Amino acid sequence: MSMLEWGLIGGGEGSIIGGAHVVGARMDGQFTLAAGAVDIDPERGRDYACRLGVAADRAYGDWRSMLAGELARPEGDRVSLVTIATPNSTHYEIASAFLEAGIHVLCEKPMTTMVEDAEALVEIAARTGRICAVNYVYSGYPMAREMRAMVARGDLGRVRVVNTEFAHSFLADPSNDFPGWRFDPAQAGVSAIVGDCGVHALHLASFVVGQEVERLTADFARCVEGRELEDDALVAFRMSGGTVGRLWTSAVAVGHSHGLRIQVFGERGGLAWDQEQPNQLYWTPLGESTRRLERGAEGLSPESTRASRMMLIGHPEGFLEGFANIYADLAEEIVARREGRPPAPAATWWPTTEDGLRSVAAVHAAVESNRREGAWVDARPPSLR
Amino acid sequence: MSMLEWGLIGGGEGSIIGGAHVVGARMDGQFTLAAGAVDIDPERGRDYACRLGVAADRAYGDWRSMLAGELARPEGDRVSLVTIATPNSTHYEIASAFLEAGIHVLCEKPMTTMVEDAEALVEIAARTGRICAVNYVYSGYPMAREMRAMVARGDLGRVRVVNTEFAHSFLADPSNDFPGWRFDPAQAGVSAIVGDCGVHALHLASFVVGQEVERLTADFARCVEGRELEDDALVAFRMSGGTVGRLWTSAVAVGHSHGLRIQVFGERGGLAWDQEQPNQLYWTPLGESTRRLERGAEGLSPESTRASRMMLIGHPEGFLEGFANIYADLAEEIVARREGRPPAPAATWWPTTEDGLRSVAAVHAAVESNRREGAWVDARPPSLR
Amino acid sequence: MSMLEWGLIGGGEGSIIGGAHVVGARMDGQFTLAAGAVDIDPERGRDYACRLGVAADRAYGDWRSMLAGELARPEGDRVSLVTIATPNSTHYEIASAFLEAGIHVLCEKPMTTMVEDAEALVEIAARTGRICAVNYVYSGYPMAREMRAMVARGDLGRVRVVNTEFAHSFLADPSNDFPGWRFDPAQAGVSAIVGDCGVHALHLASFVVGQEVERLTADFARCVEGRELEDDALVAFRMSGGTVGRLWTSAVAVGHSHGLRIQVFGERGGLAWDQEQPNQLYWTPLGESTRRLERGAEGLSPESTRASRMMLIGHPEGFLEGFANIYADLAEEIVARREGRPPAPAATWWPTTEDGLRSVAAVHAAVESNRREGAWVDARPPSLR
Amino acid sequence: MSMLEWGLIGGGEGSIIGGAHVVGARMDGQFTLAAGAVDIDPERGRDYACRLGVAADRAYGDWRSMLAGELARPEGDRVSLVTIATPNSTHYEIASAFLEAGIHVLCEKPMTTMVEDAEALVEIAARTGRICAVNYVYSGYPMAREMRAMVARGDLGRVRVVNTEFAHSFLADPSNDFPGWRFDPAQAGVSAIVGDCGVHALHLASFVVGQEVERLTADFARCVEGRELEDDALVAFRMSGGTVGRLWTSAVAVGHSHGLRIQVFGERGGLAWDQEQPNQLYWTPLGESTRRLERGAEGLSPESTRASRMMLIGHPEGFLEGFANIYADLAEEIVARREGRPPAPAATWWPTTEDGLRSVAAVHAAVESNRREGAWVDARPPSLR
Repeated sequence: MSMLEWGLIGGGEGSIIGGAHVVGARMDGQFTLAAGAVDIDPERGRDYACRLGVAADRAYGDWRSMLAGELARPEGDRVSLVTIATPNSTHYEIASAFLEAGIHVLCEKPMTTMVEDAEALVEIAARTGRICAVNYVYSGYPMAREMRAMVARGDLGRVRVVNTEFAHSFLADPSNDFPGWRFDPAQAGVSAIVGDCGVHALHLASFVVGQEVERLTADFARCVEGRELEDDALVAFRMSGGTVGRLWTSAVAVGHSHGLRIQVFGERGGLAWDQEQPNQLYWTPLGESTRRLERGAEGLSPESTRASRMMLIGHPEGFLEGFANIYADLAEEIVARREGRPPAPAATWWPTTEDGLRSVAAVHAAVESNRREGAWVDARPPSLR
Repeated sequence: MSMLEWGLIGGGEGSIIGGAHVVGARMDGQFTLAAGAVDIDPERGRDYACRLGVAADRAYGDWRSMLAGELARPEGDRVSLVTIATPNSTHYEIASAFLEAGIHVLCEKPMTTMVEDAEALVEIAARTGRICAVNYVYSGYPMAREMRAMVARGDLGRVRVVNTEFAHSFLADPSNDFPGWRFDPAQAGVSAIVGDCGVHALHLASFVVGQEVERLTADFARCVEGRELEDDALVAFRMSGGTVGRLWTSAVAVGHSHGLRIQVFGERGGLAWDQEQPNQLYWTPLGESTRRLERGAEGLSPESTRASRMMLIGHPEGFLEGFANIYADLAEEIVARREGRPPAPAATWWPTTEDGLRSVAAVHAAVESNRREGAWVDARPPSLR
Repeated sequence: MSMLEWGLIGGGEGSIIGGAHVVGARMDGQFTLAAGAVDIDPERGRDYACRLGVAADRAYGDWRSMLAGELARPEGDRVSLVTIATPNSTHYEIASAFLEAGIHVLCEKPMTTMVEDAEALVEIAARTGRICAVNYVYSGYPMAREMRAMVARGDLGRVRVVNTEFAHSFLADPSNDFPGWRFDPAQAGVSAIVGDCGVHALHLASFVVGQEVERLTADFARCVEGRELEDDALVAFRMSGGTVGRLWTSAVAVGHSHGLRIQVFGERGGLAWDQEQPNQLYWTPLGESTRRLERGAEGLSPESTRASRMMLIGHPEGFLEGFANIYADLAEEIVARREGRPPAPAATWWPTTEDGLRSVAAVHAAVESNRREGAWVDARPPSLR
Repeated sequence: MSMLEWGLIGGGEGSIIGGAHVVGARMDGQFTLAAGAVDIDPERGRDYACRLGVAADRAYGDWRSMLAGELARPEGDRVSLVTIATPNSTHYEIASAFLEAGIHVLCEKPMTTMVEDAEALVEIAARTGRICAVNYVYSGYPMAREMRAMVARGDLGRVRVVNTEFAHSFLADPSNDFPGWRFDPAQAGVSAIVGDCGVHALHLASFVVGQEVERLTADFARCVEGRELEDDALVAFRMSGGTVGRLWTSAVAVGHSHGLRIQVFGERGGLAWDQEQPNQLYWTPLGESTRRLERGAEGLSPESTRASRMMLIGHPEGFLEGFANIYADLAEEIVARREGRPPAPAATWWPTTEDGLRSVAAVHAAVESNRREGAWVDARPPSLR
């Protein structure tokens, strides 16, 4: 097996998300960290990249020199994929530059801060034929994929309602928001909790139900004095196949740890899954008792089985395996393209540029609905209406 | 101890709610079922009342003859309290008649179907000086009262958000709605799931937080084809003290049993309670780990302690004790009035006519908001604005 | 409906178990508390009995005058059943006296302290043809009966292992054992935690599996300094049908509330039930996922359905309904005998004198095994070998 | 960072445990898989090793040629550590050979099948000064380490009781034991479920409580017809500091997934942890309510913090991180030895050769006790009495 060369932009020392990417990319041994521009401070970034195993000449001070440096190398000897884990406002510029240079991209969410930029990235990815994936990592969990597989094969019948929740308590204590950029529109953009967490839930709803968010109405609340952006929101939405959607997201939910949950209610049964206990999925066929499905059990779908490393019940997997599954999918996609074959069918559920665009549009729609006192707003990006 | 004479109207054989009233009223030995008009079919009603221990001459064929019969008895020898468990549209007429006759009333919810009638009942109760309680039975649970006590004494600081949910699956299978009155506006009124279940959650939110619902925005969905009323709804609301409210209620949530839950998030901590596991209350002080408070433990509030029969942890109580606690409160209120003393302080949290009025108004407000595409609507009854 | 007259001996004011009997007997309206000798202090006992609704002339100062007083009344006008909730060492004398007088008995556990006395009660009950039931109240829970029904109809196939646990923390703090009789052999008898709690688990194992405990090996520990009797024990046993049994019981299990749990593992599936969340029963057919069965659901056995008051899922029942179910069974048994008909089949699972005898023998066997360093000991009473 | 070269013996393609070692060793980027003899079939083994990234000349056909091949390389260019994941009966021979050659060893459990061999390995490891760690992987979980830290710093006071359980259902269906070596003494040794699973629980008890198992009594059952070794066992034990121990282990517990649980009860509080939900630890201070401690929270011990990758609550970790933590500890130990410094204090809790020896002795003691009908038996290895 020859490993794929991978590059990391942002996600420097101490970054939780950066560390998760490093472990996730490493877990299956398909990627090797070959280049990095991991810190706003060039020296600190080069030092940390070297400690992560990057050769000194590919430990760059910033993304521009990384792009130039990699392009200066022979074509077969460059990074195949870069992960962008920099501040949100920089995603567009970096992603578009690497795509134009022919390098695949995995971008942290939100893909961009502006809908227009997201539309542009869709165009660039299509034109260059490069991957521009977005890290909706929760869709990498095996049991999230099991839900999607169950819905897709009709176990639930028509899906009537999807109820999602992403409520944590990390910002319940105002002193945790230091130095305070999260509720500053200049730094955080138009939305705080919906843009940061709500979008994960919306993406997961679309991922599982197999429909897009079409329109929505939102109520934002600023629960902690002095905040300029919302720290709690309720969103009702409708999906392209007629499913009714509900979302509650909060940053002040004391007692919640991380709090991503989804429930799917169809004509023939219901599903419930909680990201914090990700190895169990609860399935209730209409009129029957609730079953607890265990990750790793025999008889699950090919998609969740492929996304499992421990094929035994009772051996829990977690968050980092979600990252690893996104990377495993991208590795398969890249290798399949090289080999001129289609990727394995169970490896094609990674979040696309369109997914990233839809989420950016939905956040802006929620902001607008709240501003217009709960009016229903089209949540689709202009290009996908 | 001399027992109080109690009468039951509606709630005949096979009625689940009627059976719960009978057991609840009986549990503490303070009430004896002395009179009844329990069935739309006079003969069946008399027969069942007799089997419940009612003397033949007080087993009435309908509520009018019961009212007349009781009034014909010497003043000290009538029922002190009647429970009204008839179809919703009859509540107003029956309740007002008994109140005017000087007999206390415990009315099933919704207190009335129209706001005007609810306003009238408030006036009648005030004028006659009689109790017109409404059976928001979930507020009878000890741990619901513990939450209210904790909020009232400031454990949570200012309450930022209250998130409620009342989602069941009883009507997920359309064939369960037989003979189909629940979604027929002529029989069910303006709302189905919000009027039937959502109001319990709204009342509980007010009960616990100690604030009234002031305004709201609602999204109704009809998930099962052919239904004229909503079977799923999302409501955002604001309370009189500034607390932000969220409510999801559903009749198609396959996998949910009965599904009443409440979470309260304040500046200094959060609470979570699930009616289906009612003996545990989860309390998270800000910045600390979550504690599981057990009903029956030492150190709980006087209000929840008074509402407990088994003062030992690990000895579960349930739904019927909620009924019993409402009856115990009313017994104390009635006896205290007779004795010209104030009731025990821990016994004064039963749901009042005003509570019933507010709920009726909130349901109508939700219907209006949904009709007006999510517009924010005043949820208060006219007389309490 | 004419109510059965019922008498209470012991269980005076402040007694938790006495209060549970009063509510349990009252809940279904089949018994009326007609006589009582409820306290060691005659005056206090008479006063409390009157407050419970007993007529002054039947509020007795002690059980002997109660027996005499009731026998002095016309035959049809005496208590039908007495409950004995006095200290364990008095059970035999009181129970035998009432049985000999022709009055049915419900005795708190342990039925007696000595095996010989228990053998004698079996003989007396058989000779007099009177009921001498023992209050193994946990077998009154609907889902305990569901388990028994499932095993009996063969859902599990041959039962391989039954694993039971009764572990609480009430005596983890030595200062809670005040005035300290529980670990004093003179007052508590030969065993503390096994005799008090372990026997409940052993009875439940027999009840569910439908087999008797035949032999056992036990390890007792005295975890708190100064205790003369065990406060933690492990018991392995074998049952009459070959099932392997395990029991852990403890009084020092900090973090456990009351802690009665049972798991049953058969050839074709497994069951798990926890008394503290008694409305859910977990059922795993071999090779399939675990199902959560809800009390009140359609399709449960006649025995658990009859033991349910709220025939709706999500409406929790609890400990007091367990008492009520024992009383409901005894009412049916008494009335059926009067009417010369067999009792309803679903009402015949109340714990008998033989059950009481077997438990007493098992406790003595455990004590002997521990004394003999874990030797296997016959756990059956001499008369039932 | 220069990576440590690591070798794998056994654990070939399709091996669950082998896969876990590969991911665990890879996760933190401290080890690189440099050599392997991974399959009983040399060709298949070489092929798979190459696919795992091993160079062709270090993909060996068997462990002997691997040992020879590595020793033929320059001293600084050999594997530092080999993992032995071959059948149990081969552990001793392989481990002793590598230790004598100066190469550190991580051995799967059981370390050996015979007590004598385990004693010999202790001697060899001491004499050669090499690491001979045993993969008691559950002690690698952060919350297992948190328990040990809490006990060690006295949070629980004197530990009275430790209750452990390792019960699964993998062999409840006899057809799963194919080709049937697990209950064949010739292949499996003296014990099945105790040797395979019970030892994990015993090790964890020692690990957490900080005491050794001194003596025990055991009851073995063969629940499935035709099995020659036990598939269910109950063990009572006493530890070196006086703690009372309880263990139930089973292979026929239908409804259990993997089923490793531990509860620790001390004078001042109790702990409960379940391997299947490993991110939560339940802590009950005496007389207070139970707290749910979340992995990743601030304020946990240095030992559990060091063993966490995601330092945020609500981001679950799992089984593979347990492996990774053992490897991280060994990397630190190896590097520290090279650098002539003590290892980081929080990295010194990996399971030692003595731990492996004690477990082997305990299994043999349990077998003997069961044979002697529950007699108490010394569980310590001769050299450690």
